[in-house]
Amino acid sequence: MKVITAIAEMRSLSRALRMEGKKIGFVPTMGFLHEGHLSLMRRARSENDVVVASIFVNPTQFGPHEDLDRYPRDAEGDRAKCEAVGVDLLFMPQAPDLYPEKPAVFVVVEGISEVLEGAVRPGHYKGVATIVAKLFNIVQPHKAYFGQKDFQQCAVIKRMVAGLDLDVDVVVLPTMREPDGLAMSSRNSYLDKEERRVAAAVWRALSEGERLFQTGQRDAAVIQGAVRSELLREPGILIDYVAIVDPDSFTPQAVIESRTMMLVAVRVGRTRLIDNLQFL
Amino acid sequence: MKVITAIAEMRSLSRALRMEGKKIGFVPTMGFLHEGHLSLMRRARSENDVVVASIFVNPTQFGPHEDLDRYPRDAEGDRAKCEAVGVDLLFMPQAPDLYPEKPAVFVVVEGISEVLEGAVRPGHYKGVATIVAKLFNIVQPHKAYFGQKDFQQCAVIKRMVAGLDLDVDVVVLPTMREPDGLAMSSRNSYLDKEERRVAAAVWRALSEGERLFQTGQRDAAVIQGAVRSELLREPGILIDYVAIVDPDSFTPQAVIESRTMMLVAVRVGRTRLIDNLQFL
Repeated sequence: MKVITAIAEMRSLSRALRMEGKKIGFVPTMGFLHEGHLSLMRRARSENDVVVASIFVNPTQFGPHEDLDRYPRDAEGDRAKCEAVGVDLLFMPQAPDLYPEKPAVFVVVEGISEVLEGAVRPGHYKGVATIVAKLFNIVQPHKAYFGQKDFQQCAVIKRMVAGLDLDVDVVVLPTMREPDGLAMSSRNSYLDKEERRVAAAVWRALSEGERLFQTGQRDAAVIQGAVRSELLREPGILIDYVAIVDPDSFTPQAVIESRTMMLVAVRVGRTRLIDNLQFL
Repeated sequence: MKVITAIAEMRSLSRALRMEGKKIGFVPTMGFLHEGHLSLMRRARSENDVVVASIFVNPTQFGPHEDLDRYPRDAEGDRAKCEAVGVDLLFMPQAPDLYPEKPAVFVVVEGISEVLEGAVRPGHYKGVATIVAKLFNIVQPHKAYFGQKDFQQCAVIKRMVAGLDLDVDVVVLPTMREPDGLAMSSRNSYLDKEERRVAAAVWRALSEGERLFQTGQRDAAVIQGAVRSELLREPGILIDYVAIVDPDSFTPQAVIESRTMMLVAVRVGRTRLIDNLQFL
C-alpha cells in the first residue's frame, strides 16, 4: 500500500491508472476506521482493479461549535487496517493543500441539504458535497462507496453526482452494527461506559418501529410515536428528530406505502448519534 | 466533424479518447459563433489532438427578465463554422437532458460572483459555474478555452477549477474586435444600425483610458472619469459600471501599480455590452 499526501501525485497516479484501463474504486473517509469503513473497502476491493481510500477530517463540514477539534484520529491504526483489507493507495491530503485560502467555492445541493441533519447542522452538506466533489476530481474513481448510516449524506452525494454530471458510480452499503445494534460510527468513541449503554436505545427504538411495521402498521405518526416513546425510556437521550420521509425528496410521509426511510438523530451527553431504517 | 446531442455518447467518446492518450481541447459556447469563438477553436486545434466545441444556451445563467428567449441562434451556420476551423466533435446537448428537473445542484464561487456583472445579474455566475462544471465533467477536456471579453467569467471559472480541483487547464485568449474596436459578441446582433454606431463608443472610451495610462496617469479615479466622459458623449449609452479593479479579487483599485483591469458595462437600447482592458 502506498500512502500519498500530495494532491498532484494522487491525481497523476489516477490519470495513469485510467489510461491503463484500470477500474478505480474509492472509499473517502474521515479516518478512525471501523468495521463499517472496512466493509466498504472490502467491497471496493472485490469490484475494482485499484482501491483508493482517503482519510481527511474535512473542516468545512463542521459547524463552529461542533467537534472538529476533538474528532478522533488514529493515523497509524487506520493505515494498518487499510493495508489489511487490500487498499492500494491511501490518500491523506492536508487541509492547507485542499483549501489554500478561505474556501470560496462550494457545491450546493439545494432542498435536501436543508432538512433534518442539514437543519440541525447548517452548512454541513455544503461542506460534504464540496469535499466529495474535490476528492472525486482528484481521485477520478469509477465507483465510490458510502455507508447507509449516513443516509442523507448518501442522497446529497448522489444528487450532486447527477446534478454535476460527474462520471462516478455511487455505491451505498448497509450500516454495520455493534452486537447490541448500535450503528458503527467513529463518534461512538466519544461515549463513556454509561453513555454507550444508553446509546443502544437508538437501535431498540428503530427495531420497535420495524416491529410495528411488520405487524401491519402503516401510519407514520403511530410508528414515530412508538419510536419516540422507546427513546424517551432512556433519560440520557435527547431526541433531535424522528422522521419518516420519502427517500428521494426527504418530505415527511404520513402513510408508508412505498419505499420510505425512518431517520433518527439523538444526543447522548455531548455526542450526536444518527441512524436509520428502511421500510419497503 | 461529428455532431453529438446525447450526454452519454459525449461522455463515452471522451472516455475512449482519454484512454487512447489523446489530448482534448474544449471550447464551450452559447452558439451564434463569431470570430472570437473561432479564434478559440483555432487555438484549441493547434494545441490538442481532438477539439470539442459545445453549443448550449444555458437557461440557468439568465435572469428572469433577461434575453434567454431572444438569444440569437444559428445552428446551421455554427455547424459550418465549426467544421471549417477543424472542430472534431460538436456537442449540442438539450436542456432537458442537462437539467432533468428543477435544477437544485449548483457550483457557487463566492465573492467575485457577486460584484460588477454579478451584482447587475444576480445568479448569473452561479449558472455559469454550474454549467461549465457540468460540461467539463461530461467532455473531460485537458484544456478549455475562453475569451477575455468575459473577463469576470474567466476569473469565476478559474477559481471554480482551482476550488473543485478540476483537472482542466483554463486558457484565456484576447478579445476579438470589429474594425471600429467593438468587442465581438453574439449580442451585437441585437443592435440596429444606429445602436451599432453608438456601441463603438465603448472601445473609444476604453482607448481614452489606455491613452491616459500611457501618458503616465495612474490615478484610477481620473481614468474612470475620462472613460465615463467619453461614454457620456453618446446620449444613446447608459453606463452600468466603469470599474478599475484587482484582476484576482475584483476589489477597486485607487492607484494603478500592478496588473489591473478596467471593466466596463453599458446598455445601448435593450442591449447590454461589456468590455475590458488590462493595465500592466
